[in-house]
Amino acid sequence: MPDLAYINGRVMPLREAMVPVEDRGFQFGDSVYEVICASRGEPFLLDRHIHRLRRSLKEIRLDPGSRLDRMEHTIRSLVNKSRYREALVYVQITRGRAPRGHAFPAHSRPTVVVTVRRKKPVPGEARSRGVPLVTEPDIRWGRCDIKSTQLLSNVLLKQKALEADAYEVLFFRPGGWITEGSSTNFFAVHKGVLFTHPATNRLLPGVTRALVIELAKEAGMTVRERAVRIGHAGRWTEAFITSTTSDVVPVVRIDDRVVGAGRPGPVARELYEAILRKARGK
Amino acid sequence: MPDLAYINGRVMPLREAMVPVEDRGFQFGDSVYEVICASRGEPFLLDRHIHRLRRSLKEIRLDPGSRLDRMEHTIRSLVNKSRYREALVYVQITRGRAPRGHAFPAHSRPTVVVTVRRKKPVPGEARSRGVPLVTEPDIRWGRCDIKSTQLLSNVLLKQKALEADAYEVLFFRPGGWITEGSSTNFFAVHKGVLFTHPATNRLLPGVTRALVIELAKEAGMTVRERAVRIGHAGRWTEAFITSTTSDVVPVVRIDDRVVGAGRPGPVARELYEAILRKARGK
Repeated sequence: MPDLAYINGRVMPLREAMVPVEDRGFQFGDSVYEVICASRGEPFLLDRHIHRLRRSLKEIRLDPGSRLDRMEHTIRSLVNKSRYREALVYVQITRGRAPRGHAFPAHSRPTVVVTVRRKKPVPGEARSRGVPLVTEPDIRWGRCDIKSTQLLSNVLLKQKALEADAYEVLFFRPGGWITEGSSTNFFAVHKGVLFTHPATNRLLPGVTRALVIELAKEAGMTVRERAVRIGHAGRWTEAFITSTTSDVVPVVRIDDRVVGAGRPGPVARELYEAILRKARGK
Repeated sequence: MPDLAYINGRVMPLREAMVPVEDRGFQFGDSVYEVICASRGEPFLLDRHIHRLRRSLKEIRLDPGSRLDRMEHTIRSLVNKSRYREALVYVQITRGRAPRGHAFPAHSRPTVVVTVRRKKPVPGEARSRGVPLVTEPDIRWGRCDIKSTQLLSNVLLKQKALEADAYEVLFFRPGGWITEGSSTNFFAVHKGVLFTHPATNRLLPGVTRALVIELAKEAGMTVRERAVRIGHAGRWTEAFITSTTSDVVPVVRIDDRVVGAGRPGPVARELYEAILRKARGK
């Protein structure tokens, strides 16, 4: 099977999947999205992703009607059709096609896109040796809590990070307060306590972020949703980033500061293994 | 003739113009654009728009190669083909199609889209009676100087403005400093001096904004590129907004503050007429 796409009820090979030039997703970024991993053919934490999708849609005042109610079925059916055991599902909902104009169109049918591709594993070296990050001022818009396709700053700064041989870019607000990465949330371990930025409008409330907080508490850790500063990186015993596609990846360097012992630590490993157990339903 | 579209060298009716779901313009807003008016079949200030397009492309590190050099020809040829005398030209260039991932794709051909539609005139009442605006905190990203398709905040707040019976939304930074409107630049007249926000990363350097500054200076006015505060609206004798599609539109109210005498003033009228003369080549 090739990679597949669903658009407004029709299924086709992804390479043939097209949207109109006048789709508001293309011309305005007037759309929201989700990325979901399927493991052994089973979408992981699907209910949480759909819950977040509903929230994003509500925040941008977009209502795709009954197609949203059928989203779980649409996703499962497309994953099954692809026959991929390890799959990457991408969902994007836009305000549809309309003659260009900023305000909402009087009449438009939202565009619902779901795609399924084969998922590539995270490089083993990233997990076994940890990764370096670089930092950049957070110049994103004020509603990063909405999972929208306003991603140009993420694109430009992720690229800059890769060119600096880093794995990811970490955004910070004035004062050096870390918000999150371009496609990851950030955690630091200080004196045995797990810190991460609170879920405000400044960052995306990651599905894996919330799961990690739950699993850490279940494991008896203290978790504080409080921002940390880059300047304090030398004091942490560990740091890691989380995302749907990479679960937990240990961080061993931020700019020129070594984190902890400069190698992956036990908290990141324990939480990663806890996620794997959960994904296997154990 | 129907509305037309050009995509990567092919011309077609706009309603048939499609881009791939995996185009980075659709999935990331990884694209920049221009809107150009053609009057009597002649694109107005085309060189300035292409100059700004080049700058936007450079800022997002996107190089469409020789197709950019041919852009003037492409636009003129599409306008001619449409036979529209009053036309709205839309240009969008994206980083092209690639399997989804934030960083720049190793190989992708930029997508170049040009569309031509019939231009509708600005409602006569807006010019003759002036328009009311509402204000909203400026929550946009830190690179509004790039004419990118990161437009979701503009969309949401323009819609909110229309629902409040306003013509446009005006963004302000902490302290009440006005930056610009969702698709317009803003000018105020105070003690005979024309004020507008300097062309920083906080606003789009409008082609019409620059033209208005030039024409005002030619007419002997003093122009200061300095931000003004909403709270001072009661002191101004006039205010107006500028854009490619609407030239100069007088502003008579901002939230609940009446501007000047509550009707269009002489500066806005003079500058609008100066633009019309320039468009007619006089």
